[in-house]
Amino acid sequence: MAVYTDVSFEDLETALAGYDVGAPLSFKGIAEGVENSNFYLRATGGAFILTLYEKRVREADLPFFLGLMEHLASRGIACPLPVRRNDGALFAHVNGRPAALLTYLDGLSLRQPGVAHCAAAGAALAALHEAGRGFELSRPNALSVKGWPDLVHATAERADTVQTGLRALIETSLEQLERSWPTGLPSGVIHADLFPDNVLFMDGEVSGLIDFYFACNDAFAYDLAVLLNAWCFETDGAFNITKGKALLGAYHTRRDLSDVEIAALPVLAQGAALRFLLTRLYDLLNHDPMALVRPKDPREFAKRLRFHLAARHARDYGL
Amino acid sequence: MAVYTDVSFEDLETALAGYDVGAPLSFKGIAEGVENSNFYLRATGGAFILTLYEKRVREADLPFFLGLMEHLASRGIACPLPVRRNDGALFAHVNGRPAALLTYLDGLSLRQPGVAHCAAAGAALAALHEAGRGFELSRPNALSVKGWPDLVHATAERADTVQTGLRALIETSLEQLERSWPTGLPSGVIHADLFPDNVLFMDGEVSGLIDFYFACNDAFAYDLAVLLNAWCFETDGAFNITKGKALLGAYHTRRDLSDVEIAALPVLAQGAALRFLLTRLYDLLNHDPMALVRPKDPREFAKRLRFHLAARHARDYGL
Repeated sequence: MAVYTDVSFEDLETALAGYDVGAPLSFKGIAEGVENSNFYLRATGGAFILTLYEKRVREADLPFFLGLMEHLASRGIACPLPVRRNDGALFAHVNGRPAALLTYLDGLSLRQPGVAHCAAAGAALAALHEAGRGFELSRPNALSVKGWPDLVHATAERADTVQTGLRALIETSLEQLERSWPTGLPSGVIHADLFPDNVLFMDGEVSGLIDFYFACNDAFAYDLAVLLNAWCFETDGAFNITKGKALLGAYHTRRDLSDVEIAALPVLAQGAALRFLLTRLYDLLNHDPMALVRPKDPREFAKRLRFHLAARHARDYGL
Repeated sequence: MAVYTDVSFEDLETALAGYDVGAPLSFKGIAEGVENSNFYLRATGGAFILTLYEKRVREADLPFFLGLMEHLASRGIACPLPVRRNDGALFAHVNGRPAALLTYLDGLSLRQPGVAHCAAAGAALAALHEAGRGFELSRPNALSVKGWPDLVHATAERADTVQTGLRALIETSLEQLERSWPTGLPSGVIHADLFPDNVLFMDGEVSGLIDFYFACNDAFAYDLAVLLNAWCFETDGAFNITKGKALLGAYHTRRDLSDVEIAALPVLAQGAALRFLLTRLYDLLNHDPMALVRPKDPREFAKRLRFHLAARHARDYGL
């Protein structure tokens, strides 16, 4: 949550020469985003976010991420729209980093979403899944079942330094998931990281979906399982079935879930919990004390994973 | 340059209940300020900065800092105006921190100000000095000659680990300055930290002066010496006398410098360089690797200090 690469006014002027957005009025680094540098820009032509992509986002993936936002925005999804440069390009380079200019969306993300917000998030995810149809590029989900063994390998030995029993939980879950991971579910473009900080609200309605830098092609129901993990647990770690019911119900109303998707929900929820547990654990164990981000607590997802391991049916989530 | 204390949407709603600024439309942590947490807020009632004061700013000083901005703004200085709460207070508490809401100023700060910008900064400082008259609170300058021995004491032993000869430079300078530091110069409220990042420009004109959290009562010419240090050296460390001439000339035109002030300029410039050398050195030597700021290089000011030690007259700066 910081700015990694500085952009001076002079750098900005050079960068803006390639765009038709008018003269800059205000420009501030903002504390947002996982590992990119983000700047708020207000210009005579509107309000924008300038993003410099740091090491985590591969330049080769930018046509997918930026093209997807353009595709979704043209289909009515309130997401940042990449501003094309005068030469037609979706991104350029600023201070040695790939960089894109995106429209700025109003709205505020919630720390403690209520039941109605969960329903709105569920409906927004379903709309996103529908709107993604027809997008011609694709990107595999590197953080799904085939990607987990590497993360387990990189974290298992030191896992119990974070929480006793964590290694066993991870290894047992991985083994189970590798055996039971569903294939052939309805798939398409998924967001894969739709946490509350990536959903903007205004007057109780969703006004924007942001941060598409984990988006990929995978099962829609897996994305729903991520959403369930991200929105329906209370700060004390308890699952809130009222929120689960609202979220799943709203999704289901907007995009009909098939019987196989419903049956797969518990195992997908386990997988989603393991995915965030593993990446948070990896980030914590490999945290550079000089880094400008504070690592997130992996134990939250250990607790959620344990909950999912005990779930047998989508009913356990309120569906 | 980061956000130290998180403010959720829910926290924001609670805080805004005390103000008459309308409903929030957008809210982002911004990477700005020395050691405070700053948030950009756009609401139906306008654009604002919400600042949470972290440890460096003492709550007891807030009536001075915020009252000063209110005083200056009412006298035509383009500085942030603290928004008074409905109960009349200039600040309240948010998440355990003293916090104020200030109007947001448009404009961009420059990394490489040119000659005309230096002149504009000089004129703006003179206007600030004039506008500060009549402000009824006062605050001593803790980072002037009486404050330096403590900083020298805390840094001298390890100074040469940063640059060979630094300890001798510091100790010799301190000794000289203690003997020659001028008293009785025309004084009043000074900004004391008017670096280019604290001056906003729009279309070549100064559109805002920000960050008043070092403001205090001291000699006006000392503030001018800080400005000279901050604006008139090139990135290679060389003094640019054309910029010095423009800056000093513009100040002098707007507020007449007396002969004693002019005569004191070299020693004041030495003092200003020592002040920033010492605080940067202290921050570097005591840098917490977990901190979210990167320490600034003290050696820039060692070089400037050496330049000032060789200067004999205000003419050496272009006046």
